[in-house]
Amino acid sequence: MITLLFLFNIAATIAFAVSGALVAARHRLDWIGFVFMACITGIGGGTLRDTILNVPVFWLDDYHTILVCSASAILTYFAAKHISRRSKPLLWADALGMALFTALGAQKAMALGMNIPVATIMGVFSACLGGIIRDVIVNDVPVVFQREIYITASLSGALTYCLLHTYLPLNESVALVAGGSVAFTVRALAITQNLTMPAHQGLDD
Amino acid sequence: MITLLFLFNIAATIAFAVSGALVAARHRLDWIGFVFMACITGIGGGTLRDTILNVPVFWLDDYHTILVCSASAILTYFAAKHISRRSKPLLWADALGMALFTALGAQKAMALGMNIPVATIMGVFSACLGGIIRDVIVNDVPVVFQREIYITASLSGALTYCLLHTYLPLNESVALVAGGSVAFTVRALAITQNLTMPAHQGLDD
Amino acid sequence: MITLLFLFNIAATIAFAVSGALVAARHRLDWIGFVFMACITGIGGGTLRDTILNVPVFWLDDYHTILVCSASAILTYFAAKHISRRSKPLLWADALGMALFTALGAQKAMALGMNIPVATIMGVFSACLGGIIRDVIVNDVPVVFQREIYITASLSGALTYCLLHTYLPLNESVALVAGGSVAFTVRALAITQNLTMPAHQGLDD
Repeated sequence: MITLLFLFNIAATIAFAVSGALVAARHRLDWIGFVFMACITGIGGGTLRDTILNVPVFWLDDYHTILVCSASAILTYFAAKHISRRSKPLLWADALGMALFTALGAQKAMALGMNIPVATIMGVFSACLGGIIRDVIVNDVPVVFQREIYITASLSGALTYCLLHTYLPLNESVALVAGGSVAFTVRALAITQNLTMPAHQGLDD
Repeated sequence: MITLLFLFNIAATIAFAVSGALVAARHRLDWIGFVFMACITGIGGGTLRDTILNVPVFWLDDYHTILVCSASAILTYFAAKHISRRSKPLLWADALGMALFTALGAQKAMALGMNIPVATIMGVFSACLGGIIRDVIVNDVPVVFQREIYITASLSGALTYCLLHTYLPLNESVALVAGGSVAFTVRALAITQNLTMPAHQGLDD
Repeated sequence: MITLLFLFNIAATIAFAVSGALVAARHRLDWIGFVFMACITGIGGGTLRDTILNVPVFWLDDYHTILVCSASAILTYFAAKHISRRSKPLLWADALGMALFTALGAQKAMALGMNIPVATIMGVFSACLGGIIRDVIVNDVPVVFQREIYITASLSGALTYCLLHTYLPLNESVALVAGGSVAFTVRALAITQNLTMPAHQGLDD
């Protein structure tokens, strides 16, 4: 279980880092821009979660995350064209990462004694804020706000975990797997069925 | 007094949340984008204030703020056209909220033993940073930087509170009301008289 | 030594603040926009460093930094055209500031017991994040990501300090001066030789 979680975590971090590096490629940044965008996407959500929860930021003791992000950035620098051509694996790794970070983020907040709304938000923040910061830095309107079923998937997974953890006498692992599975399933349905959220029709003025 | 403060606080939070949701409407985001923009606008300033002051973030224990922001976002989603047509109430609720958050933010910093410049900044941060983050996320240059008398109103109110609190033997409530009133009055004058700050003439190169 | 460090620190802060105020001038903001941009550029990097390290934010006790930033902003408001015409001094003060903030940021993290990768990042954050936030707020893609040898200079200086501090039995001041000198030299070479980093060729799709 621990080993599987560790492997999922690495895969998730790589997926997030590569998505950051691909945004760097689209904006034709230099290599340090690649590394920075990869790191901010990979660790941004967890950093803000830990800062708001006022606990030590997770990568201060565990610098492997930063090394994984940096290595992913460098590889992407040289392989960007190939990666973008076969982006399906990236999309699925990202979905896996979103589901994992959602469940683990909500769990961390619950373990710190947060209430359900706050823990749900912390799950969503862990999974989604890195991508939002990534897009804001290069002046794109965050892609997760634009009709994509991404935050919604994360939200449903985080809420599932929090409710199961609080109201059912389940084993912790079961609640975690259930929360992650809900997030992943919703996202997978969105990807395979091309589902989108309706956009607001905007304002007249 | 407490009840009045509570009602003002709710009104202020709603006004901030609706302004965030209206920005979401202008950019035609989906419903989760509405909720996110409403929350970030409603709680962003106080979150950064508390993070910098290194005290527990205010909405971790008090999730009503998040529920109020989310509900305001959903209502705005369905009522955006009506709200934008009669925007005067929103403008005044926002002015009230700015004044309230300014005074309470400066008070919180003073109570933590901060000096006058820092406490003044914390008052301004509480009132203005939410709106700045709101605009930065959707890639507008923050509206409060553009000739509008908004930060200036907040600054004058925060400074008023800090000076009264420090140098005059006043009742705390009197200092709070005075600070909030100065901020509100300056803002109200700007709204009713269409006052603006002079813009810099820019650079030649 | 202390006095020299203090003077360097003031010069660095002024250089950063002026660069923020010049961005405000380019976007024709009002005076409060100048002050805000100057402060965010001057203290943004150190604020994020301290927040992530979970130590008291440096300017809470030492409000002189904020006063220096604000005064620089006001002066720039009236003198922007003159400053932009003779921008060489600003460029060199900024290089000095980057080198100083890099070394001091890495030192602060090392003193808190951080490992080398984290301390290196903290040196880079101290020196570079203020400028990144400055550019993101006004919706420019951060200039330090765009082929300029700036983060790279900071990175090499921070790494130099961390390695010397950890592996060589040097006097602390020697390691600091060495780290700062490496950062400054790389940056100075980039400025005088017009060196740039190669940009990524972008994506086809």
